[in-house]
Amino acid sequence: LKAIVFDGRNSHFATDLPKPLPEPGESLIQVELAAICNTDREILKGYRPDYRGVLGHEFVGIVRESPDPSLLNRRVVGEINLTCGLCLYCSSGRPHHCIERRALGINDKNGAFAGYLTLPTSLLHPVDEALPAEKAVFCEPLAAALRITEQVEFAPGTPVALLGDGRLALMICQSLAATQDVDLTVFGRHPEKLALFSPYAKTFGAIDTEDTFEVVVDATGNPASLSDAIALTRSEGTLVLKSTYAEKAHIDISMVVVREIRMIGSRCGPFKPALELLQTGKVDLPPLTCFAPEDFKKAMESKTFKAALDFRS
Amino acid sequence: LKAIVFDGRNSHFATDLPKPLPEPGESLIQVELAAICNTDREILKGYRPDYRGVLGHEFVGIVRESPDPSLLNRRVVGEINLTCGLCLYCSSGRPHHCIERRALGINDKNGAFAGYLTLPTSLLHPVDEALPAEKAVFCEPLAAALRITEQVEFAPGTPVALLGDGRLALMICQSLAATQDVDLTVFGRHPEKLALFSPYAKTFGAIDTEDTFEVVVDATGNPASLSDAIALTRSEGTLVLKSTYAEKAHIDISMVVVREIRMIGSRCGPFKPALELLQTGKVDLPPLTCFAPEDFKKAMESKTFKAALDFRS
Repeated sequence: LKAIVFDGRNSHFATDLPKPLPEPGESLIQVELAAICNTDREILKGYRPDYRGVLGHEFVGIVRESPDPSLLNRRVVGEINLTCGLCLYCSSGRPHHCIERRALGINDKNGAFAGYLTLPTSLLHPVDEALPAEKAVFCEPLAAALRITEQVEFAPGTPVALLGDGRLALMICQSLAATQDVDLTVFGRHPEKLALFSPYAKTFGAIDTEDTFEVVVDATGNPASLSDAIALTRSEGTLVLKSTYAEKAHIDISMVVVREIRMIGSRCGPFKPALELLQTGKVDLPPLTCFAPEDFKKAMESKTFKAALDFRS
Repeated sequence: LKAIVFDGRNSHFATDLPKPLPEPGESLIQVELAAICNTDREILKGYRPDYRGVLGHEFVGIVRESPDPSLLNRRVVGEINLTCGLCLYCSSGRPHHCIERRALGINDKNGAFAGYLTLPTSLLHPVDEALPAEKAVFCEPLAAALRITEQVEFAPGTPVALLGDGRLALMICQSLAATQDVDLTVFGRHPEKLALFSPYAKTFGAIDTEDTFEVVVDATGNPASLSDAIALTRSEGTLVLKSTYAEKAHIDISMVVVREIRMIGSRCGPFKPALELLQTGKVDLPPLTCFAPEDFKKAMESKTFKAALDFRS
């Protein structure tokens, strides 16, 4: 089995891994494509020093063994959080915050950079025949972008600022444009990237803090942007935090208090509406760049919108 | 007129100020008591270098001139924010965030540390005859404590942690105990102060981050406490920020994002329910310590629960 394995410090390409054995309730999935996420890069930088195993958590594949016969030989995408079903969070409608949570390719569960993976069958979502693997693989990060729409209520015409012009920002931009009646402004530093956003939003290259917005989404991945994000948020407005980074951020809390700003952390999101947006073409992201698993290191250095390992050959 | 005047750097006791003239729509109030707030101390430390004028914003007094005859010779308390009525915030239900906002004793409006003050009549709230000035003067800070109940919905039995054992914390503790069915735990560093909280809450001297709470209120006034406050907040829980301070806070934003914590700034609150709590005795705070206006500097150094200047003599 071809796989990218993390030993706690480095990754290596392996060919001698055995095919994984599904646990009770799990299905066996033959991976078609597995995309590279910034979290994978963070793990290689030391974000998850306790993790040992196969990397990767954004995938599309074909079910080869399953307790649910209707799934056999179907193309699926899969949620990444394995939960206990019993803890405080599982029993109060917050299973993705399960205390005993394991996460595909991130925490105590072999991931998707491999010819095969196993996952609890309840986490799998069949994909329409018409949706190619190259598009379906965007489901997990698009679901994370859609999480915002579960957390924030957007009144019609709400002025929204999106900070960032990377991959996550583009998914947030497209998913907000597709699902909400909002007045969207994007702030980014790379004019060549902002062109991708222009059909969906008013765009600007630089922040003018005279302008303020009811909702601001920080997807810059940069703690230095947080002061701008706070300044752009209206009093009693909402600042959605999508970026994770190792460094601490320095915040003027008095401004948050005096202006009564709401700051909301936002992470994994709903797969069903994400798949729906991909299947109806309402979200249409730039093409994926595929690499052979052997070329993992090259894929990690790729600056394209989205790089993926192709396990189909 | 006796008054405490701020010149942008220092304060001095003055006796030669003329009685203020009410502007159209304003009432003239003879101040009985004006309490000292931490904001007054922050102004003297440089928090509001542009302010010039009489300090003080927590007061109770008697209306002596008013366009509303029913208020004449009535004891009143008063809201402190003077608003334009026209701006984005005034026209969207957020007048206390008015862009042109002036604030009594803080921003472009002479304050309450004086024998007389003027305020727009619409900001005045008459006090029941039975409520003495010594209790009515708690209305403004108690309203700020009650602001939390406007911002957060508390399900019955919600576990709530309150960080801090100062004056604002005690008002938050009593107002939550009086108005919400919550399971309240107080964390503070001063055992002698925590005794004041014990009828209303389970109390602890030290933070154990194994325990978590659906709602955490930070009223410590200390940016170093914010990490504890985040650690104590459950995933998808709410952290209410009540403390303002000049220093920046250093925050692990990734923890806020991954655990999807909501952080809400919280400031001024509703006077009517605050007065109601004082008038019904449902909130009953330790006695005020009164000082003559001449003894302002001594009053500022007072370590009692609440110090006030007494202008009745």
